[in-house]
Amino acid sequence: MNTQMKQARAGHLTPEIEKVAEQERLSPQTIMEGISRGTIVIPHNRALPKSRICGIGCGLRTKVNANIGTSKDRPDLGQEMEKLHAALEAGADTVMDLSTGGDINLIRREILHHSSVPVGTVPIYQAAIESIEEFGAVVKMPEEKLFRVIEEQAADGVDFVTIHAGLTMDAVQRLKKQGRLMDIVSRGGAFLVSWMIHHQRENPLYEHFDRLLDLARRFDLVLSLGDGLRPGALADATDRAQIQELLTLGELAERAWQADVQVMIEGPGHVPMDQIEANIVLQKRLCKNAPFYVLGPLVTDIASGYDHISSAIGAAIAARAGADFICYVTPSEHLRLPTPEDVRDGVIAARIAAHAADIAKKIPGALEWDNKMSQARKSQDWQAQIQLAIYPKTAQRLRQASPPKETATCSMCGEFCAIGMVKDFLKSSQP
Amino acid sequence: MNTQMKQARAGHLTPEIEKVAEQERLSPQTIMEGISRGTIVIPHNRALPKSRICGIGCGLRTKVNANIGTSKDRPDLGQEMEKLHAALEAGADTVMDLSTGGDINLIRREILHHSSVPVGTVPIYQAAIESIEEFGAVVKMPEEKLFRVIEEQAADGVDFVTIHAGLTMDAVQRLKKQGRLMDIVSRGGAFLVSWMIHHQRENPLYEHFDRLLDLARRFDLVLSLGDGLRPGALADATDRAQIQELLTLGELAERAWQADVQVMIEGPGHVPMDQIEANIVLQKRLCKNAPFYVLGPLVTDIASGYDHISSAIGAAIAARAGADFICYVTPSEHLRLPTPEDVRDGVIAARIAAHAADIAKKIPGALEWDNKMSQARKSQDWQAQIQLAIYPKTAQRLRQASPPKETATCSMCGEFCAIGMVKDFLKSSQP
Repeated sequence: MNTQMKQARAGHLTPEIEKVAEQERLSPQTIMEGISRGTIVIPHNRALPKSRICGIGCGLRTKVNANIGTSKDRPDLGQEMEKLHAALEAGADTVMDLSTGGDINLIRREILHHSSVPVGTVPIYQAAIESIEEFGAVVKMPEEKLFRVIEEQAADGVDFVTIHAGLTMDAVQRLKKQGRLMDIVSRGGAFLVSWMIHHQRENPLYEHFDRLLDLARRFDLVLSLGDGLRPGALADATDRAQIQELLTLGELAERAWQADVQVMIEGPGHVPMDQIEANIVLQKRLCKNAPFYVLGPLVTDIASGYDHISSAIGAAIAARAGADFICYVTPSEHLRLPTPEDVRDGVIAARIAAHAADIAKKIPGALEWDNKMSQARKSQDWQAQIQLAIYPKTAQRLRQASPPKETATCSMCGEFCAIGMVKDFLKSSQP
Repeated sequence: MNTQMKQARAGHLTPEIEKVAEQERLSPQTIMEGISRGTIVIPHNRALPKSRICGIGCGLRTKVNANIGTSKDRPDLGQEMEKLHAALEAGADTVMDLSTGGDINLIRREILHHSSVPVGTVPIYQAAIESIEEFGAVVKMPEEKLFRVIEEQAADGVDFVTIHAGLTMDAVQRLKKQGRLMDIVSRGGAFLVSWMIHHQRENPLYEHFDRLLDLARRFDLVLSLGDGLRPGALADATDRAQIQELLTLGELAERAWQADVQVMIEGPGHVPMDQIEANIVLQKRLCKNAPFYVLGPLVTDIASGYDHISSAIGAAIAARAGADFICYVTPSEHLRLPTPEDVRDGVIAARIAAHAADIAKKIPGALEWDNKMSQARKSQDWQAQIQLAIYPKTAQRLRQASPPKETATCSMCGEFCAIGMVKDFLKSSQP
């Protein structure tokens, strides 16, 4: 099948490559070469094209993903549609449906149907939950079910899937030998490890990776190689279990490329500020510059209720160091399933982080946005200031709630606005 | 007079040094040496001791300041008391009263009376506003008024004051030659530059710096040498005008030390991520490791409504690189005078940034907090998780608004909680 990667390698400029090149203000050749080498992916399932696409990878604008989806405690489809809407309105580049409650197939199809942006999933959730429902336990999950669910989700039109194929017996042994404060915090990782230890069997996603590659090639599904052993505490960051898994992910990425399959690598999680850059360098080296998709990372464990801020700090540093794709974290992380408001706040925080990094990385056009805002501030053009804000509705709301007496200023400085004060002096006279 | 610095240089361990040493888990000798060399300050006006003190500087926990104060559009004292309360409850280490509206003397005295933490001010605000009221224009401000206001505020018990003494004619000329997108965004800077250009006279705070030193010595007032030319746009960051002023601030810091006066240096502002570390290195070199007090910095100009997040990113990077003291930025920055809620959100965001940096800097005790949180997560102890959160009320509110069916988990994962799932497997069996 003609995946984007196969076509790029054949020197064929697909419509998707042209579109991404235009969005990024880069030449189609640059995008094509990135896809050929595996440093750029375009999630774009041929079974259900979305109206908006994006490229993810080296040299491109840092992209932001919003995780939505039900839980068993909160299985409401209507709420998920609201969350999808909130994510899109706040500017998410992609969404992932992580539903684990209610009619999972229905919810995914509704999200796929209503999403204008690429959609990702973690198919093992559905496979594990169906196994609990049908057979009473995750460990009773037939391998066949796992592959069937991945195929069904791909056939529905999912653009990228998290696959924890690097979570091998070796890595689990290293985890036990290592010792951790938090053990495993990835749900997919926990399902798999339970299964593997119970059966004393290797991870089927690792053992039958070629089968996954065949499947991915059919739909041009992007494989997002998940880190089931990602640390869930600063104390566990960058430990031997994490790096063991990353070594395997690097090998699997090369196998994917040999099969013309697009692939990303997933990363932590919880990482102290002084280890973030090392994590990025390591991933880029071990995985030969495959796009890196990081979850935050959180730079402190104590920010419950404000983890969108903790993760914005980590995401900005990660993206500046080379991370390509940021999974948002919402204020509700570690506390509850997010609400639509949490989704919005999470997307905005992650976009601020991504944009700040893009400025530092000199991504074409990034600083222009800021310069337009500064021009609007200098000319005291409030309409432009509101329109240029990352989320204009909030800027508008805050200003309207406390309007200034002099409309050229704001209620913080009023007539003592420095910009207004000094403008004439600097123009008219010589010091 | 016996300033902290003079006593430290004489080898005298003051009660304040002992207290700070205990808070920081460092030896009193370490604090004493830092104060002697000027790398640590303890803002502590002898005229009105506050119940809580703190040290600011090299090797210490990064401190957070909250700016409060009225504007002419919002001159309400009650609101300022609420903001003070919000700042203290959220964990601010210091507050600054930047009032420019209403009865400025009364408001300052009320804040000083009710604040448990050190209080700072920017006296030129009052001097300029009184000049407008009395004489019709800032440029009519008598030099004498400026010094009298500083003295009055010091006598009231203010612990540190921003003094824009480095804003010289040379720096203004450099600003004009340089050209900027945003010119001057510091209100104090704008008042002074207007005055200087109008009179074609040097900055009186620079010319009569010795007079300021006499005054500071009398009250052991910490001089916070302000950056009146701090850039107000990413495009202007680290420009020649900013650095010209910083050169002068370094010279003034040495003069302060010669007079046994404690001194800090103020910094930007708006700085792209890739220039932050350079700014810190430069300040530390040019100002011989005087404590650095940064305003954010914001890492993008387009986050109006969310500038607490933009500044948390910048503050974390700055603090990790060596900034000692962070002035918070609230969500209302660039839009309006902050509300008590904005003050709370601003303090929390800045504290997250400061703490994340302290972990990376290996400040004694910093990571312990996170490890306690991770232990509470592992043992699914929700009471401890709430108590250990940076602002427990918010964590409690979010969890209660969406309680899980199984009390050991949260409504995100419920029975599929990875921590619960994998715990037994890892303990009981061998892979």
